[in-house]
Amino acid sequence: MDKNQEPGREDILLAAERIKPTLHRTAILTCRYIDELVGASIYFKCENFQKAGAFKSRGATNALLSYDQYDIKSGVATHSSGNHAAALARAAQLRHIPAYIVMPENSSKVKVEAVKGYGGRITFCKPTLIAREEKLNDVLNETNAFEIHPYNNYAVIAGQATAALELIEDQPGFDTIISPVGGGGLLSGTALAAHYFSPKTNVIGAEPTGADDAYQSFYQKKFIPSINPDTIADGLRTSLGSLTFPIIRRLVSDIVTVNDHATIEAMKLVWERMKIIIEPSSAVALAMVIKHKHRFAGQKIGIIISGGNVDLMHLPWM
Amino acid sequence: MDKNQEPGREDILLAAERIKPTLHRTAILTCRYIDELVGASIYFKCENFQKAGAFKSRGATNALLSYDQYDIKSGVATHSSGNHAAALARAAQLRHIPAYIVMPENSSKVKVEAVKGYGGRITFCKPTLIAREEKLNDVLNETNAFEIHPYNNYAVIAGQATAALELIEDQPGFDTIISPVGGGGLLSGTALAAHYFSPKTNVIGAEPTGADDAYQSFYQKKFIPSINPDTIADGLRTSLGSLTFPIIRRLVSDIVTVNDHATIEAMKLVWERMKIIIEPSSAVALAMVIKHKHRFAGQKIGIIISGGNVDLMHLPWM
Repeated sequence: MDKNQEPGREDILLAAERIKPTLHRTAILTCRYIDELVGASIYFKCENFQKAGAFKSRGATNALLSYDQYDIKSGVATHSSGNHAAALARAAQLRHIPAYIVMPENSSKVKVEAVKGYGGRITFCKPTLIAREEKLNDVLNETNAFEIHPYNNYAVIAGQATAALELIEDQPGFDTIISPVGGGGLLSGTALAAHYFSPKTNVIGAEPTGADDAYQSFYQKKFIPSINPDTIADGLRTSLGSLTFPIIRRLVSDIVTVNDHATIEAMKLVWERMKIIIEPSSAVALAMVIKHKHRFAGQKIGIIISGGNVDLMHLPWM
Repeated sequence: MDKNQEPGREDILLAAERIKPTLHRTAILTCRYIDELVGASIYFKCENFQKAGAFKSRGATNALLSYDQYDIKSGVATHSSGNHAAALARAAQLRHIPAYIVMPENSSKVKVEAVKGYGGRITFCKPTLIAREEKLNDVLNETNAFEIHPYNNYAVIAGQATAALELIEDQPGFDTIISPVGGGGLLSGTALAAHYFSPKTNVIGAEPTGADDAYQSFYQKKFIPSINPDTIADGLRTSLGSLTFPIIRRLVSDIVTVNDHATIEAMKLVWERMKIIIEPSSAVALAMVIKHKHRFAGQKIGIIISGGNVDLMHLPWM
């Protein structure tokens, strides 16, 4: 694919072929109790079952498998406290190149262990965006590694689009597909997949009230950064990117916010009823559907469960 | 089926047909991380995804669907603080008959709500076995309901056997299938299914050290009751039954115990790595395999994950 151009139909199909041998085609689950609760038919695309526990493996793996060996021969690098770090480390391991991960020093032990488990080389830094970016620059200069941004990268976006592609292939005819929105990699990928493969489907982003920069950007029609986000959905605190926002503006029908209380309730509901572990960021979409159930009454809805990496020692309802 | 005779091949196949329309053929999951940890190939039969959250729905549903309308026209009854209560209430609802459930007054709110959610009529009693049996007798006399014992019932055993039957159908060639053992309904059903449909497979029971009555009974070749059981595996505190013990003696290869510490570790490992919610009773089998991994090296192993009903406010590692 042309890495400087927005992914088209072929790019998404190629991404799906590329990642197929090393990633899971994740399960799609339903729950009658939840369907009755909301009066709709919801299909959950379970990226919590994905390798490294999140959809992030799709984007990272597609990026690493689509770049030339020459470009990434010195390795890849990113700063991340979360799922992208583990996903990139795992993808680099597949290509036998080093992954340099800049992580804030307050990252959870579980996430640090996950990155180490995939052979990632960690550099710690102060937990601020400026410190992360500075340290990453140092690492890039020292190692000559290639930066793989967690979402502002077309190959990553094409990879994230494959989750919705599989959902649409397995369950045609959605009225609405909903994904959470943080930096917009998953939401823009979902919007592209629906645009090319299910054009009658509305795509909606779900966002925490305490980190509503995408909502603000969408409705003010200009980029509004995420400043002092306050939400337990730790994957959704980032700002939109210069590549993700234009796709979202053009192809997403709506962005709807929901507060953390509702998100925690939805997360607990899924754990109790569906017996699967989803992270807070993944519960935002269901919380939004429950809150606005009259809007979605009778619809066939797809929800992308973004991941299942949770610190089991600190659950949000305890 | 003849309800006074041990289930044969045909009884198990009939049970499978009977429950098919209203229960799930549950997923079978694998986890590469766990396989590498133990050096074997483990297939987890996920009864935590079963209706009402546990394999108990199989036995209760088969029993209710195989009895004559005449026998159960006044309803069914049991005493149970756990999964059988919800399973029986749900099965009774399918046949439009009342289910009278005697529950100890200290039953968890979640379990009481589950029984109520399926329309079960609850009578509370003191939390002792004697109080439970006395109260159940009162209820049986008052209502003329038919008692469905949680495990000492051949129709229930035939229903529980269908979990292993599905596992064997989907994944032939197991060296070993392991199920937890409490009253022995699941273990005896598993042993019957292997005997008829995969006779070269060894069936092993896994039991908590703090409730090792089945282990003691098996090796002393006589019934030893469970007295003052001390384990977090709340589904495995009961004694074997007069119908389950003979099957286990004849068809089970071994019963192996494991302590609660190892069970909690195994439970957390499954939550973290497989992103599924399993209850402590379900983790006993994996804990046992991890403890004795040299014994199982290189084997193809089936593990029946018995259920996923956990009080999310009180997790054993917190």
